Amino acid sequence: MLKNQRPIIPVFLAALCAAGSALPQQQRQPAVNGARIVARLNALSEFGKNPQGGVSRLAYSEADLRGREYVMGLMREAKLDVSIDSAGNIIGRRAGGEPGLAPLLIGSHIDSVPEGGNYDGDVGSMGAIEVAQTLVESGVTLRHPLEVVVFQNEEGGTIGSHAIGGELTEKQLNLVTNSGKRIRDGIRFIGGDPEKLGGARRRRGGVTAYLELHIEQGGILDSEKINIGVVEGIVGIKQWDVTIEGFANHAGTTPMNQRRDAMLAAARFIDAVNRIVTSMPGRQVGTVGKIQAQPGAYNVIPGRVILGLELRDLDEKKIDQLFDKISAEAEQIARAAGVKFSFTQTNSITPAPTDERLRRIIDGAAKELGFTVRAMPSGAGHDAQEIARIAPVGMIFIPSVDGISHSPREYSRPGDIGNGAAVLLHSLLKLDKMKLD
Amino acid sequence: MLKNQRPIIPVFLAALCAAGSALPQQQRQPAVNGARIVARLNALSEFGKNPQGGVSRLAYSEADLRGREYVMGLMREAKLDVSIDSAGNIIGRRAGGEPGLAPLLIGSHIDSVPEGGNYDGDVGSMGAIEVAQTLVESGVTLRHPLEVVVFQNEEGGTIGSHAIGGELTEKQLNLVTNSGKRIRDGIRFIGGDPEKLGGARRRRGGVTAYLELHIEQGGILDSEKINIGVVEGIVGIKQWDVTIEGFANHAGTTPMNQRRDAMLAAARFIDAVNRIVTSMPGRQVGTVGKIQAQPGAYNVIPGRVILGLELRDLDEKKIDQLFDKISAEAEQIARAAGVKFSFTQTNSITPAPTDERLRRIIDGAAKELGFTVRAMPSGAGHDAQEIARIAPVGMIFIPSVDGISHSPREYSRPGDIGNGAAVLLHSLLKLDKMKLD
Repeated sequence: MLKNQRPIIPVFLAALCAAGSALPQQQRQPAVNGARIVARLNALSEFGKNPQGGVSRLAYSEADLRGREYVMGLMREAKLDVSIDSAGNIIGRRAGGEPGLAPLLIGSHIDSVPEGGNYDGDVGSMGAIEVAQTLVESGVTLRHPLEVVVFQNEEGGTIGSHAIGGELTEKQLNLVTNSGKRIRDGIRFIGGDPEKLGGARRRRGGVTAYLELHIEQGGILDSEKINIGVVEGIVGIKQWDVTIEGFANHAGTTPMNQRRDAMLAAARFIDAVNRIVTSMPGRQVGTVGKIQAQPGAYNVIPGRVILGLELRDLDEKKIDQLFDKISAEAEQIARAAGVKFSFTQTNSITPAPTDERLRRIIDGAAKELGFTVRAMPSGAGHDAQEIARIAPVGMIFIPSVDGISHSPREYSRPGDIGNGAAVLLHSLLKLDKMKLD
Repeated sequence: MLKNQRPIIPVFLAALCAAGSALPQQQRQPAVNGARIVARLNALSEFGKNPQGGVSRLAYSEADLRGREYVMGLMREAKLDVSIDSAGNIIGRRAGGEPGLAPLLIGSHIDSVPEGGNYDGDVGSMGAIEVAQTLVESGVTLRHPLEVVVFQNEEGGTIGSHAIGGELTEKQLNLVTNSGKRIRDGIRFIGGDPEKLGGARRRRGGVTAYLELHIEQGGILDSEKINIGVVEGIVGIKQWDVTIEGFANHAGTTPMNQRRDAMLAAARFIDAVNRIVTSMPGRQVGTVGKIQAQPGAYNVIPGRVILGLELRDLDEKKIDQLFDKISAEAEQIARAAGVKFSFTQTNSITPAPTDERLRRIIDGAAKELGFTVRAMPSGAGHDAQEIARIAPVGMIFIPSVDGISHSPREYSRPGDIGNGAAVLLHSLLKLDKMKLD
């Protein structure tokens, strides 16, 4: 069966040698074909390719549809039973050896942000299919059924995985996405049925565990030259609209000491956010990513500034603590500048810790394969956070060169991609042998 | 002739009494009718009146056209010979008693900013007509010819006065104004002829002097409870677009110490502008009135921020000094934040000092009338700065309550308006007796 497809992961082997670790003397294990993954990533990159590089494969677009067809072809090549659930997720299933067990899920997504890259989601999707194909090509049957899931519309709010882990609201279904379609219509467009979403939902116990391979999208692994990240959890996110009310006035005739300048107060606020977030130990992040000043002319002191504040951490209490400090400092800035701050929370996503047992499995698998490993939070949202509502989840990160993501310049090295898929495969094999509950 | 129109300026008289100064024992002087000015300001406020208060009498709009017709009616009532010059300025002329003298000009404008107030420009225009009418009603003939000028489109860049003091460029003529019309078409719309602008232009020596009464538009006179401001000059203005190039990245996955956050650098820059401008002695002002952050989302670290910087002072060297300090500090901020600043100058208006002799005349006239007086810069641009290119100019300021201008909440008290017109009249009478060159 494997005649011309000797599984080769040159960089992975090189990493093993470089690490100087002895190859564990166990029975010969199935091994993924890193080159095949990379070739498939290249093929996938054609669907929605941008002239200036990278990809715009927006969920529910024509490019998304064609990318999904390509994915389903690969799943069939991996001898998976392919179906689309009522939420539009693509599921490739292989039966397990032991009756009565709930499936193990592996997967990711293939939709992209506008002008995104070719690795975010794609690596995990191609990696999961590769793992399934390696198993079938190696003649290995797991105890549990295996489901490779390519979730729909991750970038627009983890929609497909949300429908598996919970219930989509009417508001979500009516949301207009970047493709121009409402989510409701998008689901129908890709072969789902928004009227029968209950059919896609899984109950607690209906999934044994979920493992996701993903690019880090940040620069920690790359800058520390570490092969594999074991994700401790997906950070919680809170977002606010911050409105600063001063008084708009003539920039020429209003002396400096008679101003109530909303822009100056905003500047001090943005600096304070950075100072407060970086002054506490830990890996929390705080960002002011958008700002609007009114009326917005060279010669008018801004009377109102509205800006967007975002805080993320694995610990929701820490987010709240940071916000308390920030709003206290805003009070001081307001008094000094003669302005008024008000905060409207616009988003709140609860942190989703990964399962400790799965973290140990991934850590062990990676180390046995000779990789350097570190534990780390995921600063970005992922489908895993939705599945965490009904099942234990684990996530494997590989380096993003220079930490760049959501950009045509997003890049992960072929060797790292092979490494990640190898860790996914070996974690899955370990997991399959365990009893989790 | 003055049967039922006894010139009464109650607040002016009250001010005299309050100041306890002895009424100078000179021949009875003509006196303006403050109540008539206020009644005319009220009538003028109907043209372009906003439902929510204030006025939108944009240059070249229907409201502007009707306001101008009202003005020409008042000029005829004041026995002035009314004409529209080729640039569209309204000129009401009265012959002088001594042959061969160049005219004395007084006036202002009646166009407004969008959602402006009822005092900016209007006070000086109605005040100048009142002065001319007072002279004719008092039977006083000046040595010099008198021209009351209501300049067109002051708010859109002192266009009408620019055409008198110099030459409008093709670029200016093709500029689309707030009314939606190009300046060229606007001039035609109000009765001028953009093809014959040379006819409106005055040469040096063709105007003896120009006096303008205006509201301060700032809060200095109001907060210091001073009746009259003698304008030392109209500040110079320089404006820049400041571009800050950082690197856009994922706000969740990029650790705080790996960011090149253009927004954070912008915040520190805005704070530095304020600190530098306020740390030097003097009345200079510095403003960041507009800002744009790209890409502009809660969850993306801004990779580029573009903001508008404006500096104003009576002394151009000081503006340049401030800018040098600001750009040096920007260098430091750039190094610390891993970003790059670039500055593109978008506007430069040279300071226009008023004539020292005219300042003394105004100061003397105001003091003789019993008013408190202070010298001050004009932070805003005015038609006087254009006329300063060809003739000595002087400006008289009256208080703006709470320093509010370019707003429906702009307000000047009737008493202050009468005071200002009285100072304009008495300065004009003194000026008429002098030989300026």
